[in-house]
Amino acid sequence: MEINNRTVRLNERPNGLPEKKIWSFNEENFDLKLDDNQFIIKNEFISLDPAMRGWLNDARSYIKPVNIGDVMRAGTVGKIIKSNNKYYNEGDYVSGWGGVQDYTITNGENFQKINDDKVAKESYLGVLGMPGFTAYFGILREGKIKEGETVVVSAAAGAVGSVVGQIAKIKGCKVIGIAGGENKCKYVTEELNFDHCLDYKSDNFFSELKDKCKGGVDVYFDNVGGSLLNHMLIFISKGARIVICGAISQYNSQKVVGPSNYLSLLVNRASMKGMVVFDYVKDYGLAQKEMRDWILTGKLKSNEDIYEGIENFHEIFLKLFNGEKKGKLILKL
Amino acid sequence: MEINNRTVRLNERPNGLPEKKIWSFNEENFDLKLDDNQFIIKNEFISLDPAMRGWLNDARSYIKPVNIGDVMRAGTVGKIIKSNNKYYNEGDYVSGWGGVQDYTITNGENFQKINDDKVAKESYLGVLGMPGFTAYFGILREGKIKEGETVVVSAAAGAVGSVVGQIAKIKGCKVIGIAGGENKCKYVTEELNFDHCLDYKSDNFFSELKDKCKGGVDVYFDNVGGSLLNHMLIFISKGARIVICGAISQYNSQKVVGPSNYLSLLVNRASMKGMVVFDYVKDYGLAQKEMRDWILTGKLKSNEDIYEGIENFHEIFLKLFNGEKKGKLILKL
Repeated sequence: MEINNRTVRLNERPNGLPEKKIWSFNEENFDLKLDDNQFIIKNEFISLDPAMRGWLNDARSYIKPVNIGDVMRAGTVGKIIKSNNKYYNEGDYVSGWGGVQDYTITNGENFQKINDDKVAKESYLGVLGMPGFTAYFGILREGKIKEGETVVVSAAAGAVGSVVGQIAKIKGCKVIGIAGGENKCKYVTEELNFDHCLDYKSDNFFSELKDKCKGGVDVYFDNVGGSLLNHMLIFISKGARIVICGAISQYNSQKVVGPSNYLSLLVNRASMKGMVVFDYVKDYGLAQKEMRDWILTGKLKSNEDIYEGIENFHEIFLKLFNGEKKGKLILKL
Repeated sequence: MEINNRTVRLNERPNGLPEKKIWSFNEENFDLKLDDNQFIIKNEFISLDPAMRGWLNDARSYIKPVNIGDVMRAGTVGKIIKSNNKYYNEGDYVSGWGGVQDYTITNGENFQKINDDKVAKESYLGVLGMPGFTAYFGILREGKIKEGETVVVSAAAGAVGSVVGQIAKIKGCKVIGIAGGENKCKYVTEELNFDHCLDYKSDNFFSELKDKCKGGVDVYFDNVGGSLLNHMLIFISKGARIVICGAISQYNSQKVVGPSNYLSLLVNRASMKGMVVFDYVKDYGLAQKEMRDWILTGKLKSNEDIYEGIENFHEIFLKLFNGEKKGKLILKL
C-alpha cells in the first residue's frame, strides 16, 4: 500500500509573526509497513492553537521546541486505516499528537480512542480536548471560582475563553467576556450566555470595562497579556486570582510588556499564577466526562471554526493571531 | 501635669522622594486629663518602615492614607506614665500605633503589653513586631518553604529580609540574600548565616546571580520590585512561589516598572502573590512566641539600627530609601 503523505515541517525559526517561509510543504511517499503494535491514522482534523507559536521558539519552556526539519506538532483527530495493535482497530477514531500531516504512524502512546456517536469528532480537539481541559482546570482548579463571584475572561470567543466563561456561568458566577469586534461580542452574550461582552476594539472599551468591573473582579482569566492584563490589575478585588493561561498579544512580540500595576497584587493580597494544562493529564477523563454531559444537556456549546486544505495551513494558522477566527480553529483535511 | 508633646504631622502629600516640607514639627502643650479607661504612654522607640511611604499617598490601599494634619502613623514602644485603665498600669511597657510623637493617649485599642525582661524592648518593633511577623508569615504561609528548597531574599539586610532568610535557614533551606554593598553582604553571611549574599551594586551582580540561581529558585521573597523582580522571574523553578511583600525600589517612582518576564510564571506554573501582614493578626502571638524562643536559643538575631532625636525624623526616615540603614530602622526618643 503506497501512502502519499503531505506534511508541513518547520523550516526555520520565526522572528515575530511567522512568515510562510518558515514552513516546508512536502509530499512524502512511502510503502506502508507497520511494526508490531503500530497503527496508521488518516488525520481528518488538525488543531491550531496559540501555544504552537511558543513551540517554534528555541527557548526553555514547558515542552520542547519543535526541531527544525520536524513535522509541525499539532493535536489531531483521525481514523485508523490499518493496525498491528490489538487495542486499536481499523475504523477506530483517535485523538492525539498526529502533527500537521495526512497520515501518522504510532504505537498508540499519547493517543486516545474516541468512542462517541453523539458529539462531533472534531469537538475532541476543542471543548473535549486540550482547549476544553485548559478551560476546565484553569477556571476550576486554578481560578477556584465560587458561586456569585465576578469572572472576567479575555479572548472570550476563543477556544479556551469561550469554555471558561460557560463553565463559570454553570457554576453561578457573573461572567464578563472581552473579545474583538461586535460580532464576536454578540456571539458571546447571545450564544454562550455570558452576562456581558466588551469589544476591546471599541473606543469606549476602557470606560466600559471600568464600569462593568466596578464591583471588583474575583478571577481574571488571562489569555492575552499586554495592556489588558495591566488594566485588569486595577480592577481586582481582595483575594483575587489571576490565571495566566496565555498571552496571545505578546507571542509575536520581540519585547513583552510587563504589568506595571503588579503592586495591586500586594494591596489586594491577590495572586497571579501560570498554568499548563499538561499538569492535569491524569484528570483529563474526568473533565471530558463532565463537559460531555454538559454538551448533551445543552449547558455547554462547542464552537469550532473549521477551514479546509493542508496547503492553506499557513494562512489558517495566522488566523490565531489576527483576530479573524471565532472559537476553536481547526484545519480539516 | 503639663505635657509638652513634640509631634510630627503630615503637612502635604509628597511627589516622589519625600521632602522635609511635607512634615510639620510641632510642640503641643496640654494639661493631662485622662478619661475612663485611657492611659498615656511616653514613647521611647518609634518604628520607621518602608510601608510608611505608601501611607502618604492618597490612594486606595490595604490601609487608609494618613490624613493631612494628622500625626504621622508609626509603630511605637513606650512606657505608661499614668493610667485610668485597670488592665494597664503605670510602668507597663506597651507596643502599638503611637505615632511620631513623644506621648500617646489611648484606651488600649491596638496596643499590647510587653512583659519581657529577656529581650530588648525595641525588638518589639523589629523581629518581634510588624517586620518580624511579615517575615514569618510571608516565608512560611505564603512562601510555603520546604526543607532543601532554594530561597532568594532581596533587601536581605533589612528588617524583613534579614528575618525571612534566618527563618528559611532554620527550616533547612539554601538561602541567597541580595543586599547593597560589601558591608551589608558580609553581615548577612557572617552574622545572619545566609549561604550567600550578593551585592546588587557590584559590577558582576547579574552574572553572580545567574550562577547562584542556576539550580532554580523555589521561593523569591521580593522586597524591592523593579528590575530585580524581573530578573528573578528568569531563575524560578517549576512550581515556584514569588512573595510580593514590598517594592522599595518603586515607592518613590512616578512610574512603576512592570516585570516583562512574567510569562515565566506560565512556563513554570509559578505564582506571584501579594501579602499584607495585617491578614495574620490573629496569629501574631504564635509567631511572637516562636521567634522569641529562637532569639533566646541563639537561632535568630534581631538587628536594629537606632538613631536618636525626633527633630531628625525626616533625615532618619530617608534612610529607608537610600540604602544607608542596616536592619530595622528605629528612632529613639
